[in-house]
Amino acid sequence: MAVRALWYRNGTLFLLDQRALPGRTVVHRLRTLSAVAQAIRTMEVRGAPSIGVAAAYGMVLGAREGSYRPDTAASELRATRPTAVDLFVGIETVRRAWAAGRDPEAAANAYRDRIVEECHRIGEAGAPLLAGAHRVLTHCNAGALATVEWGTALAPIRVARDRGAKLFVWVDETRPLLQGARLTAWELARERIPHAVIADNAAGHFFRTGQVDAVIVGADRIARNGDFANKIGTYEKAVVARENGVPFYVAAPWSTFDASRRTGAAIPVEERGEDEVLGFGGRRTTPSRSHARNPAFDVTPARYVTAFVTPDGVVRPGALAKALARRRAGP
Amino acid sequence: MAVRALWYRNGTLFLLDQRALPGRTVVHRLRTLSAVAQAIRTMEVRGAPSIGVAAAYGMVLGAREGSYRPDTAASELRATRPTAVDLFVGIETVRRAWAAGRDPEAAANAYRDRIVEECHRIGEAGAPLLAGAHRVLTHCNAGALATVEWGTALAPIRVARDRGAKLFVWVDETRPLLQGARLTAWELARERIPHAVIADNAAGHFFRTGQVDAVIVGADRIARNGDFANKIGTYEKAVVARENGVPFYVAAPWSTFDASRRTGAAIPVEERGEDEVLGFGGRRTTPSRSHARNPAFDVTPARYVTAFVTPDGVVRPGALAKALARRRAGP
Repeated sequence: MAVRALWYRNGTLFLLDQRALPGRTVVHRLRTLSAVAQAIRTMEVRGAPSIGVAAAYGMVLGAREGSYRPDTAASELRATRPTAVDLFVGIETVRRAWAAGRDPEAAANAYRDRIVEECHRIGEAGAPLLAGAHRVLTHCNAGALATVEWGTALAPIRVARDRGAKLFVWVDETRPLLQGARLTAWELARERIPHAVIADNAAGHFFRTGQVDAVIVGADRIARNGDFANKIGTYEKAVVARENGVPFYVAAPWSTFDASRRTGAAIPVEERGEDEVLGFGGRRTTPSRSHARNPAFDVTPARYVTAFVTPDGVVRPGALAKALARRRAGP
Repeated sequence: MAVRALWYRNGTLFLLDQRALPGRTVVHRLRTLSAVAQAIRTMEVRGAPSIGVAAAYGMVLGAREGSYRPDTAASELRATRPTAVDLFVGIETVRRAWAAGRDPEAAANAYRDRIVEECHRIGEAGAPLLAGAHRVLTHCNAGALATVEWGTALAPIRVARDRGAKLFVWVDETRPLLQGARLTAWELARERIPHAVIADNAAGHFFRTGQVDAVIVGADRIARNGDFANKIGTYEKAVVARENGVPFYVAAPWSTFDASRRTGAAIPVEERGEDEVLGFGGRRTTPSRSHARNPAFDVTPARYVTAFVTPDGVVRPGALAKALARRRAGP
């Protein structure tokens, strides 16, 4: 059975709690916009495409509650997290439908279907890049959990495997919240794709000793020039990949590309609470007098990206601005 | 009161348990060579200079036990961990004295005194390098705990601070065993040196946004050409530092320099059990079907090192082989 991060039925958003995995499978039933906002803020649902879809359904719930206008509903959901642009795209898609008197639920369903379908096409487009890469490194979770179904970074891995490629995946554990060790490993283990979890720290060792053939990650926001934000640590992997001549791919649906931002300098980076770093599973590991800093994302300059894997094919960073302009102009 | 990692009195080696810090201060009393070997293997004592001194006293205990010859005692202790060369130097120093009929305890004491004194001189030699660096990043723990007293990487920070420098230290938490978050933060908090713990992942973000002025780390073994082994993750920091034009210093006593190894390729890298990565504090975080890889060290090529901070001053990588040959020839 395929993993599904969330689904909607009759006024209820069902959400697989990504904080509880892999130890426990907990499904929350959310019936209000505020409950969805809270789930996004606390990262019960995470991953740029997934939070975009969750927020779209948050708008649907807001419309059903009766006390929101499209604008007030959108504001509350926009305030949850700043970095992933998909959040704003998902909200805006439903806000427009609602404001125009169209059915919010139909708009949210269509948005979700588009994301899932685009992720599937990312898999098709990206699989040939991994055909000769036996050992692929990924950071954080850019799998089905992050995108409702299929994944971004994991989609080409899945498709390549289904086509017979013998792939092995290096899984960065991805501190502080361990989305790699907990979620990516869980998805790969379910599908029996061989993998090993490593301390984020250890990736460099495997690069330098020639044990990584390619890197593929997702993204939270990609600027027009190809600079992109993704989970903290992505920048280090990109620098070390280039230093070792290993190709570095970024897979994302169109909702993650933000043509309104010229460069990565214009992408807001969320800093989360220090408790995520100071301890682990509720247990404090650092001295009581010590503090921490906890940027949740970093921005990787376009020059480290070999190519973007989009639903419509592989795009080199230098060709991105033109591809986005073409999409904007429409077919 | 200064931190002391270990001390010896009348047939007992007292050892501050570095696995229990900072939550609990536990001092073990070791009376046999095997107990010392076990403490090194399980990392109750860690840090290249500290395990060298611990092993030296392990030899002293072996000599007192009566059942060991110098060679069998040395073999048992050598088998504990492979990477830090200080271990072998500490053992060999006492083995030679013992085999020649001299007092093992006096040899171990002299070895310890030399390490502590060299670390103090590292502080004096390195402090000027940090005079203009307000924000210094360090990885793992290369403090008093790692070196009996003073530290290697932390010694110049301590001396610079005592001379009035306003230093702030970025502390990589250093997964999987969190020597940064637990031990370096503990040492800095005791001395009220401002610092922030960060996920290892996050260092790159602070480099790229211009918030790191210098990096200083310790080492476990330094080859003749300047390639060096240190805690896993050091290589990534070195690459990202150079990419951002930030100086990268490696501080070590002479016991860490291994003139017998021409390059880093000849340094053995320990791989530890996967459980350190698969869980945390006894709690499993990864799926039961997932495995992990856990190299405890990586090797950083000399070209990323700005300078070595030795007890006898600052040495550029290109000048290292000559400096080692000069030391070997004697004064």
